[in-house]
Amino acid sequence: MKTRLTVDEYATGILAGDRVVLGKAISLIESSLLSDQQQASELIEKIIDKTGQSIRIGITGVPGVGKSTFIETLGKNITDSGKKIAVLTIDPSSQLTQGSILGDKTRMDDLSKSPLAFIRPTAAGTILGGVSNKTREAILLCEAAGYEVIIVETVGVGQSEVAVKSMVDFFLLLMLAGAGDELQGIKKGIMEMADAVVITKADGDNVKHATEAQAEYQHALHLISSSASGWKPKVLSCSSITKKGIAEIWEMIMKYKEHVTSSGFFAENRAHQNIAWFQEYFHYLLKSDLLRFDSFQKEKTDLEKKVTDKKMSIQRAGNQLLAFYHNTIKNF
Amino acid sequence: MKTRLTVDEYATGILAGDRVVLGKAISLIESSLLSDQQQASELIEKIIDKTGQSIRIGITGVPGVGKSTFIETLGKNITDSGKKIAVLTIDPSSQLTQGSILGDKTRMDDLSKSPLAFIRPTAAGTILGGVSNKTREAILLCEAAGYEVIIVETVGVGQSEVAVKSMVDFFLLLMLAGAGDELQGIKKGIMEMADAVVITKADGDNVKHATEAQAEYQHALHLISSSASGWKPKVLSCSSITKKGIAEIWEMIMKYKEHVTSSGFFAENRAHQNIAWFQEYFHYLLKSDLLRFDSFQKEKTDLEKKVTDKKMSIQRAGNQLLAFYHNTIKNF
Repeated sequence: MKTRLTVDEYATGILAGDRVVLGKAISLIESSLLSDQQQASELIEKIIDKTGQSIRIGITGVPGVGKSTFIETLGKNITDSGKKIAVLTIDPSSQLTQGSILGDKTRMDDLSKSPLAFIRPTAAGTILGGVSNKTREAILLCEAAGYEVIIVETVGVGQSEVAVKSMVDFFLLLMLAGAGDELQGIKKGIMEMADAVVITKADGDNVKHATEAQAEYQHALHLISSSASGWKPKVLSCSSITKKGIAEIWEMIMKYKEHVTSSGFFAENRAHQNIAWFQEYFHYLLKSDLLRFDSFQKEKTDLEKKVTDKKMSIQRAGNQLLAFYHNTIKNF
Repeated sequence: MKTRLTVDEYATGILAGDRVVLGKAISLIESSLLSDQQQASELIEKIIDKTGQSIRIGITGVPGVGKSTFIETLGKNITDSGKKIAVLTIDPSSQLTQGSILGDKTRMDDLSKSPLAFIRPTAAGTILGGVSNKTREAILLCEAAGYEVIIVETVGVGQSEVAVKSMVDFFLLLMLAGAGDELQGIKKGIMEMADAVVITKADGDNVKHATEAQAEYQHALHLISSSASGWKPKVLSCSSITKKGIAEIWEMIMKYKEHVTSSGFFAENRAHQNIAWFQEYFHYLLKSDLLRFDSFQKEKTDLEKKVTDKKMSIQRAGNQLLAFYHNTIKNF
């Protein structure tokens, strides 16, 4: 297969469920080349009406909580029932340190062997709105390729959770049963976003700790008022070794979907997410738009100097720059 | 005195150090009336070259840590040395609950009696960029009125700390010596911003706890890499009852100022803050600019519907809206 496909070839391959084409299409989306971006945009446009038919699940937790193993175990449970699952992992570290928390090692070996599974790590990207935009587009491509369950995995270090929450239907927080530090390690704000907390590694000597932690978290979540969905966040525990609790977690997610579908919240939430994405993207475009013009850049630098030298107030400088932008557009 | 002053009257009063005029000028800045905003902008422009000659100190801490008492005690220490101090308190709750964490009770009674002190609570405001913009302008007015120390106080609940950090030279975090929960209650991100942590209420039976907490925080801060200023964050303790530690805190802040002034960081940081403020304000203006046009609002709503109905991709809708904005400007 040649490396470069036409937009039609991408679309046909994706709609036929071709995993190789899907992978290439996600690379296309991630590319910062202008010609690739143009193609990516056309591709999304072509498949947009085939998207949306999945449940999108965000999964987060601190490094060491066992996210990969959990997703692999849950994923096999899903593929065993004949459903197709896509796993998109966001690695925020690639942006910050040029290194990677997730590392190069092949992950989710077992799950990746299933013809029903598609696993894809994505870099967080360096541009503003990078994480959200590219991952959201990857979700759409996976949906067009027929994946019924989309998992968006992120490392729970507070970088990208809000973005992930804004693109999923269900947000799952994985936690370890620790000794005395049950409520630490994860920011309170992240816990407030969770539709469910799952205590991992509830096996062997750890079962007792896990049960205790479960009660504690249930209490803590109880104190947080219920979300807009009317769903009361649940706390479960599971073991990726003994598989105990895994089926229950999937049942809970299905129950949630039923609950919010019948209440209308599911569709409503998706609509809100789309509108928010649209607005975010527009403001990103607007900011980028300014950078096209050298004269605007020069005016901006001049005004910055005046502001720094206390020759001009922020207000006057801001209004002057806006007027300059207007004139630039008018004369373009 | 009549309620409405001319811009010249405001400016003359402020430059003469008239506290009543200063108070009215801050009200003018906080007003959302268009005519007031116009006046406020002219006023800032008039006094801008008389600003900048203070040390700006941000103080935060959870409710109950004793912020008011601490600021009063520190403030009296400062006025006793003949220096003028202005205290601007930001109350984030006024925005969220229409109520107020700080309450109506008169605060800092003693300090407010000093002719060298100016104390002013400010509502956080409801518009975007509200907190930062109005508080930054209030700082400028206080500086023009000759206040040599400006304290910006905020409730440490994670709402406005980042904004406050962006407008001060020194950021001070107040903490209680708790029982076992020394590192909780305050977000880690806030601690990372601190140039100093001060353990309050180090008196009576609490001295031992405070000393222990001091060591713990010093260790915790040690783990956080030093800031851009090259200053190593300090941990001190104090009592607003016995006054123990208060003079040392002021000495530390003066030492910091000396350190960053000679290194050039003080001026550099102020310049960065001004440029960031300018950019933030410009993007706020740009966003507001769109709302002027009914036709733009209509186009936006139409595109939102198309996006929600999966009739159009976010990319295409975003680009279409940008083109519409350009045309609106051209035809205006």
